[in-house]
Amino acid sequence: MQKLVECVPNFSEGRNKTVINKIFNAAKKIKGIKVFELESDKSHNRCLFTIVGSPEAVFNSVWESIKVATKLINMERHTGEHPRIGATDVVPFVPVSGVTIQECVILAKKLGQKMARELKIPVYLYEAAATRPGRVNLADVRVGEYEGLKKAIIKNPERKPDYGPSKLHPTAGAIVIGVRKYLVAFNVNLDTRDTSIGKKIAGKIRERGGGLTAVKALGFDVGGYAQVSMNLVDFEKTNFDEAYREIEKWAKTYKVKIKSSEIYGMVPLKSLVKAVKTTFKANTFKSDQVLEERLYE
Amino acid sequence: MQKLVECVPNFSEGRNKTVINKIFNAAKKIKGIKVFELESDKSHNRCLFTIVGSPEAVFNSVWESIKVATKLINMERHTGEHPRIGATDVVPFVPVSGVTIQECVILAKKLGQKMARELKIPVYLYEAAATRPGRVNLADVRVGEYEGLKKAIIKNPERKPDYGPSKLHPTAGAIVIGVRKYLVAFNVNLDTRDTSIGKKIAGKIRERGGGLTAVKALGFDVGGYAQVSMNLVDFEKTNFDEAYREIEKWAKTYKVKIKSSEIYGMVPLKSLVKAVKTTFKANTFKSDQVLEERLYE
Repeated sequence: MQKLVECVPNFSEGRNKTVINKIFNAAKKIKGIKVFELESDKSHNRCLFTIVGSPEAVFNSVWESIKVATKLINMERHTGEHPRIGATDVVPFVPVSGVTIQECVILAKKLGQKMARELKIPVYLYEAAATRPGRVNLADVRVGEYEGLKKAIIKNPERKPDYGPSKLHPTAGAIVIGVRKYLVAFNVNLDTRDTSIGKKIAGKIRERGGGLTAVKALGFDVGGYAQVSMNLVDFEKTNFDEAYREIEKWAKTYKVKIKSSEIYGMVPLKSLVKAVKTTFKANTFKSDQVLEERLYE
Repeated sequence: MQKLVECVPNFSEGRNKTVINKIFNAAKKIKGIKVFELESDKSHNRCLFTIVGSPEAVFNSVWESIKVATKLINMERHTGEHPRIGATDVVPFVPVSGVTIQECVILAKKLGQKMARELKIPVYLYEAAATRPGRVNLADVRVGEYEGLKKAIIKNPERKPDYGPSKLHPTAGAIVIGVRKYLVAFNVNLDTRDTSIGKKIAGKIRERGGGLTAVKALGFDVGGYAQVSMNLVDFEKTNFDEAYREIEKWAKTYKVKIKSSEIYGMVPLKSLVKAVKTTFKANTFKSDQVLEERLYE
């Protein structure tokens, strides 16, 4: 199996197309990777894209884009709705195949050390790369945002970065680098206009409500129908097929049927293979039986 | 989506390892393809392997292997249990993704014309490439085998090849080239030692018994338990998930449960994606949402 890592860098620029494209194109310069799904938002004043490839190539690609963002984005003049602390605000690495969380943590730390050394930017590690419990959640690391962190990083020993100076970079601020699992976005649409049922089922199936492990769920009104909208934050623990069956079970108690479902955005092959294994008891089924997968070897 | 074709050439050599490897390695010489799953059988005296890649690269790869087989295999001295008419006996092309049956038929005909012109081998076209109804089935084309065809090709106008001389090549015989759909091999194991139930269900679900379209099924005794063993010859018509549910339905009538299932060998990503779409009503789900698939673009 090929070693594949995903990286989704978030930058504090969502308005200036020239700057956005320069950052995006810098990431594309590296061979042997794919860079796609460039998204930008004017009110958030933020952009992000996805890099996929071998660990080394992804590292080099995100590094190129960070160098450009550090030059072109000035946090002193940045405004936007979304919380942020730096020009390159967040860089999560995500293992896709043939790579462990631990290997990604090493990658994240290597990137942090390089940023501290070569760009003099303070670096915070989060989620699986976090060095203390208070830094696991991204929101906790970004408390006070760029403006608040400016003072706190100097005065408050709790806010001392993992790498680099205890002082924001004069224009690029600070950065959060970390490792998280692949997030599968999955929605199930119910055949009922009683949208309260969607909300009730969401409450039952989400982890916080005592439901399925690693499932975040909300009930929405989508076109007048009830929808259960989920983030599966660890599909190895609860995959989309298991969430579907659990919702189906609860829907039955409300005498409601499932109208459709949607996998939103990208999904790793491993998640499909696992769904097939579980649903059809195909216990020996493996990713490398998928013809297209063999083309990477 | 990348254009992908599979080709599974069958050669009349299953005993001499040196010859088998020379044929296999010739196919591997072409860049941009994968050649794998070399299988050989001594009693059949036959080998086969799988080539996957772009239509052009697959064409060049199989051509290289055919040239070597034509030189090294002498049908005058060939014996084996499996029916055959030539050194390179059968060459099926199979569309995998981004390619139509029609494009594969053009490829098959191009290969046939090249073989006739450059190697003076008579060529028969079969299945989707067949030029007449009597040549759709491979078994019909191979009637009489090498020994019988030697005379028939000269005397019987019905046996005139589609391309090349109406006379066998002195050592390489003739060849059958064609186009078929991808075959998914799928077995369902029942939780019963009454193996007659497997046979009964196979009889119900197979197309010949008025069951599912494009499904061939047999009941077997596997380790003392009943198994329904299937060839899904057109998964666009009946995919493995549909066959599973149909077997589950029949099993219920016999008060028997499904113990496990197995996808045997390789399966195209499209088949997995279709199974997920159907089973979870994920109507908008597409292959290019699979992360790994994006790496080909």
